[in-house]
Amino acid sequence: MVGQSLHLVEHGSMENITLYNYFRSSTSYRARIALHLKKLTFEYKPIHLLNNGGEQNSEAYRKINPMGGVPTLVHNGHSIAQSSAIIEYLDEAFPQSYQLLPKDIVTRAHIREFCQIINADTHAYGNLKTLGYLTKNFSMKDDQKSAWLNYWMHEGLTACEKILEKSSRKFCFGDSPSAADVFLIPAITTAQRFEVDTKIYPNMTRVFDHCLKEEAFLKAHPFRQIDTPAELKI
Amino acid sequence: MVGQSLHLVEHGSMENITLYNYFRSSTSYRARIALHLKKLTFEYKPIHLLNNGGEQNSEAYRKINPMGGVPTLVHNGHSIAQSSAIIEYLDEAFPQSYQLLPKDIVTRAHIREFCQIINADTHAYGNLKTLGYLTKNFSMKDDQKSAWLNYWMHEGLTACEKILEKSSRKFCFGDSPSAADVFLIPAITTAQRFEVDTKIYPNMTRVFDHCLKEEAFLKAHPFRQIDTPAELKI
Repeated sequence: MVGQSLHLVEHGSMENITLYNYFRSSTSYRARIALHLKKLTFEYKPIHLLNNGGEQNSEAYRKINPMGGVPTLVHNGHSIAQSSAIIEYLDEAFPQSYQLLPKDIVTRAHIREFCQIINADTHAYGNLKTLGYLTKNFSMKDDQKSAWLNYWMHEGLTACEKILEKSSRKFCFGDSPSAADVFLIPAITTAQRFEVDTKIYPNMTRVFDHCLKEEAFLKAHPFRQIDTPAELKI
Repeated sequence: MVGQSLHLVEHGSMENITLYNYFRSSTSYRARIALHLKKLTFEYKPIHLLNNGGEQNSEAYRKINPMGGVPTLVHNGHSIAQSSAIIEYLDEAFPQSYQLLPKDIVTRAHIREFCQIINADTHAYGNLKTLGYLTKNFSMKDDQKSAWLNYWMHEGLTACEKILEKSSRKFCFGDSPSAADVFLIPAITTAQRFEVDTKIYPNMTRVFDHCLKEEAFLKAHPFRQIDTPAELKI
C-alpha cells in the first residue's frame, strides 16, 4: 500500500483510524478538521496528487478509493471515501465525541444543505483534474481560468453567505463549530489560493477568523501537515 | 411564490410536504424517487429551468433555495435544498416509513460514499449551467461537448460499477432499494440522454432494469410528471 511510514496524529485514545490524504486538498482538509474536532487519534498517510503520475491513481490505492480521490478513511479495516460520507460516519461511529451535526433534525438538514452547496455545487469546478481537462482540451488561458474560478466560487459562496446572514454567530450555525464550518474553511482557503476575493462576504469572513483561532482548525491546516513542503510550512 | 397550481401526488396520508422541482432535473428525480419509496404524499410545484429566464432565478424562489437550484423540499414551513440533505432529512423526519439508509453504520457510510461519487464528482459536469458556461466562454462545439460529458460521466460511472461488483444484487446494495439507487437511476438516465454508453456496465445495467420495474421509480420518472411536455409523456 502507498504511504508506508507511520505518522500518528495523537489525541490520547487509540482508535485504529488511518486517513489517506494530501496536505493541500480541500476535501482532505475537511476530514482532518473533523477528526481533530472529535479528538480522534489517526495515522496520517500522505497520498501525493502530483508525484509519480498522482499516487491516487495507483492500483493499490484505487482498491480503497474507487474514484482515485482523497481522502479515504480506514477504520477497523473498513475503507470509506468521500468527505461527506466520512464526516457522517465519524458522528455515527463515535457518538460520545464532539458531534458535527446537532440533534435537531431541521438544523441537521440545513447544515447538510450548506455542506452540499460547497461539495456538490462548488468544489468540482476548482479541483485539479477539472482545471487540467480545461487546459488540455479547451486551451484555457490564465484569464479564462481566473474567470472560471471566480464565477463558480462566487456562485457557491454567495449562496453560503446568504445562509450565514441568518444562521451564523461565532460559527456557521451558532456558537460552536459544526460540519458547516468543516466544509466552509477549506472552501475559503481554496478560493483565496486562486485569488478569489472572499472579503466581500462579511459573515463568512467573521466565521473564518474565529475558526482559525481554534485548535482543531489550526492542527488540520494544509501548511501544518507532514507532507507540507518545507517552503510552505508555518 | 412560483408554481401556483395545486398538484397533489398522493399516497394516502397527508404530510404537509411540497416539492419544488423540474421534471427533467436529475436531482429532482432523486427527491421524487425518495418520496415515492417512502410513500409520502406531496404537493408538486414545477419550477421551469428554461422558461422566463429560468424560474429558479426569481427572487421569490431564491428565498427558499439560496443557490437557485432544484429541488427544494418544504415540510411544515421548513425549506430544505440539496437532494442529499433532503434524502437524509426524510429518513430522519419519517423513521416509520421505508428507510433509504440501513441501520448498519458501515453500510450507511458505503451508500453515502456511492451517492457522493455521483453528487459531488459527476453531476456538476453535466448540468445545464456548466454546459452553458462552456458554450458561452469556451465556444464548446458538439464534439467537445460529447467528449466532455463522456469523460466525466465515465469517470464517475466506472467508480460506481467497481463498487456494484461487490455490493449489488437486485439493487445497488443488496435486495432492496436504498439511497444509492435513488442517486444511480437519475445519473444513468442523464448519461443516456447525452448518449453516454451505460450498457458497458453490467451490474449497473442489471440494477437499472430492476429499478425501472418498481412503482416508486416509475412514478418518479421524468416523463411522467405534470410538467413533462406532451411530446415526451409516456
